[in-house]
Amino acid sequence: MDADEFRRAGREMIDYVADYLENIRDRQVTPSVQQGYLRKLVPEKAPQTGEAWEDVFADVERVIMPGVTHWHSPRFHSYFPSATSYPAILGDILSDAISGLGFSWTSNPASTELETVVMDWLAHMLGLPEHFLFSFKGPGGGVIEGSASEASLMTILGAKAKAIRETKAKHPDWTDGQITDKLIAYYSEQAHSSAQRATTLAHVTGRGLPTDEEQSLRGSSLAQAIEEDRAAGLIPFYVLATSGTTPHCAFDNLTELGAICQAEELWLHVDAAYAGSAFICPEFRHWMAGVECVDSFNFNPHKWLLVNFDCSALWLKDMSLISQALDYNCPIIRPNPDSGEAMPDFRHYQVALGRRCRSMKVWFVLRMYGVEGLQKYIRTQVGLAKEFEKLVQLDDRFEMMVPVRLGLACFRLKASGEANMRLMKRINDSKRLFLTHAMLNGQAIFRFTAGASRTNSADIHHSWKIIQEEATDFLKGESDQKK
Amino acid sequence: MDADEFRRAGREMIDYVADYLENIRDRQVTPSVQQGYLRKLVPEKAPQTGEAWEDVFADVERVIMPGVTHWHSPRFHSYFPSATSYPAILGDILSDAISGLGFSWTSNPASTELETVVMDWLAHMLGLPEHFLFSFKGPGGGVIEGSASEASLMTILGAKAKAIRETKAKHPDWTDGQITDKLIAYYSEQAHSSAQRATTLAHVTGRGLPTDEEQSLRGSSLAQAIEEDRAAGLIPFYVLATSGTTPHCAFDNLTELGAICQAEELWLHVDAAYAGSAFICPEFRHWMAGVECVDSFNFNPHKWLLVNFDCSALWLKDMSLISQALDYNCPIIRPNPDSGEAMPDFRHYQVALGRRCRSMKVWFVLRMYGVEGLQKYIRTQVGLAKEFEKLVQLDDRFEMMVPVRLGLACFRLKASGEANMRLMKRINDSKRLFLTHAMLNGQAIFRFTAGASRTNSADIHHSWKIIQEEATDFLKGESDQKK
Repeated sequence: MDADEFRRAGREMIDYVADYLENIRDRQVTPSVQQGYLRKLVPEKAPQTGEAWEDVFADVERVIMPGVTHWHSPRFHSYFPSATSYPAILGDILSDAISGLGFSWTSNPASTELETVVMDWLAHMLGLPEHFLFSFKGPGGGVIEGSASEASLMTILGAKAKAIRETKAKHPDWTDGQITDKLIAYYSEQAHSSAQRATTLAHVTGRGLPTDEEQSLRGSSLAQAIEEDRAAGLIPFYVLATSGTTPHCAFDNLTELGAICQAEELWLHVDAAYAGSAFICPEFRHWMAGVECVDSFNFNPHKWLLVNFDCSALWLKDMSLISQALDYNCPIIRPNPDSGEAMPDFRHYQVALGRRCRSMKVWFVLRMYGVEGLQKYIRTQVGLAKEFEKLVQLDDRFEMMVPVRLGLACFRLKASGEANMRLMKRINDSKRLFLTHAMLNGQAIFRFTAGASRTNSADIHHSWKIIQEEATDFLKGESDQKK
Repeated sequence: MDADEFRRAGREMIDYVADYLENIRDRQVTPSVQQGYLRKLVPEKAPQTGEAWEDVFADVERVIMPGVTHWHSPRFHSYFPSATSYPAILGDILSDAISGLGFSWTSNPASTELETVVMDWLAHMLGLPEHFLFSFKGPGGGVIEGSASEASLMTILGAKAKAIRETKAKHPDWTDGQITDKLIAYYSEQAHSSAQRATTLAHVTGRGLPTDEEQSLRGSSLAQAIEEDRAAGLIPFYVLATSGTTPHCAFDNLTELGAICQAEELWLHVDAAYAGSAFICPEFRHWMAGVECVDSFNFNPHKWLLVNFDCSALWLKDMSLISQALDYNCPIIRPNPDSGEAMPDFRHYQVALGRRCRSMKVWFVLRMYGVEGLQKYIRTQVGLAKEFEKLVQLDDRFEMMVPVRLGLACFRLKASGEANMRLMKRINDSKRLFLTHAMLNGQAIFRFTAGASRTNSADIHHSWKIIQEEATDFLKGESDQKK
């Protein structure tokens, strides 16, 4: 493909993307294909000689689209949203063209420097403490990770290295393995599985702690666990608090947890993967009260801030605690020049050596939407979830199970969890909507996100109507069976 | 930005990308900026209201480009190459638009299924053993990781879990920590720092082993280490062999290492990050003789196979050994349907839960170049490195230090390593070329990659002429100093 062909094909692709996203309501939200469908549509091996663009492009509709779950359909209410936006796509195109890996300042100065700038911009937007800013000139700063899981892994490994160092100072005869056997990390029972995953990868014990009636991890729960575990000879070292849990969008109490972690010298990490984007609106920041006490804070602009995957923003109060644990020195990498402002070598803060210039898409999004544009986007989506909540409350057959906090509604048919699961299967099998469930007090409930970027009020009403229709048929079927 | 604006801006960006890549020879390969340059060019905070596309777009040349190291300039001879190609960029645009995360089959069937297909296509192209293919219907298969570092981490964690299980069967009273203290992994002293990094992240001991006169790790070296370490009470469990080392593009002896690992029950992983792409040409496959004995094999299409970062292809003889170690169950994820062909849930084979559809760009590249087009690309670049080798051999002041194997030339000025470093600094400071060094027998030598995608014979001559000119001036300066 030469440059002229690329110019033509690129225009076709840009138009295809615009058509796809603007008309996404017309597509069935989840595919009807069976497992293994795609292999039947393509050759067993790569072609020996190159094919024409037209043939490849035509196969997008023939091969790919029949098997796509359309995350940006307004009928998609599953998981948490995945972001896409026109400015982010443009930023990614440029990043792909430059394709210069920014593992050190020298390897691509613009990539490293832009990342420090957009991380400071984001920190300002969220109202994070200034010790997380590069411009503060302390040991703190931010880095773009691939995912919240990677952020949790980085911070737990940093905390583990610190805990081992400190324990060895007291017990020089203990080995790393003996100390690791005693290390214990905490998170709420409602935390995302990436919390438990981080402990698995770091090979330390993880303990899920009970939450209060608002699904929030409180200080008392943590304090009790620390006391029990210390008495059992364990070494508590790390707490992962969640701001906006996956099942119910609940918020752990950072003020209480922070005070305990400071007193007990535990690392406190905040996973705000989904909800962090909402903190650009001051009215939601009460949920991050206490953030000044945390050691690290992470959220995913690729979930709700219109930046395409992958882009997970992680701030550290002391960046050196990660780089010390993970120092990544590759002999062929030229050292940073001494001149000017010292810049981080971002390879020391992630699993990989190489890295894309992910800050480009962030920069494009922040500039083209502006802070107010993004605030408006978040508020609109929260409004849609609240609108949905009202619709649920108007139908006696249903009940809200958790008050809508941001863009997630947790509700159920007034029936057993098992009945709710059957109704959900019915709805999902209809391919008219796509929903997932959560567990609450041992019972399955509906979990409805309002987060696809083009969703509007009419879409919310449309989705609710489908749920009502399916519920009517479902209840009729249940009642017929009983007869 | 609405759809019409995106259509216009997208065309501008596509044209910009084509212009950038086609005229990249005109840009200074490394930037002249000082650290901290970028922050001075942008506001301290994100704009309150959205800006016009024209202003954002204009800042690409004003803010970004002055600080870019142009990896695709034919004057770029550092590190190993980073791939970019027009078909890959088009694939990424589509993937960004769909933006559906393929962590399970249900979450995006097309993403999961296309990945199984392109991994099989790549395995066929490289001539890998059939037990790595999904179509073989065994426990093997492939997965796209973000980097070779992540592939090493996944495999060492899989091997560690297996070793702990097996050791516990013999010593039920030993704790995980006590066993981990005894685990030891091996790699060659010439291995990439990601090998040592993987041991750091997995918290096991790593040992670099000496290589032969061709920088190759041989069986005798491994056998001796295993014997020594077992005698010292350690538990050898994992070997990372390199196909195409970073400093010299050397190849570890897989036949010898494979036989030992099978006899001694060690996991053998092959990191062919750079050189793996060359195995699509049968004439280079003698370097992977013995691959039928390895447990896992990884290479980076994002280095040399024209697929944009990130795309690191990892094959496993038994995928369950990774998923068992890392099982990633998120309650809100709907289980795979039972019907049809069983598909992997790719979240079990990586650090993150979320994942982009990276197979799209692979599919576009393989189809639009075809196997022969990609073979031609590899052979051209190997030819350029060999052409460079001949030029070096014609100048008595220089000598080749390692025969050119693929696209890397290791040479030096006939002088001390220290003098070579000073000459290299002079060349890099001129901003006319960008080179890095390697160490050989304790001395610094030049490391010259021919790998930017547009490099041609005239470019190689041009670069060599610059090196000669700078050497002449350098030697004159040295000689003047002595007077």
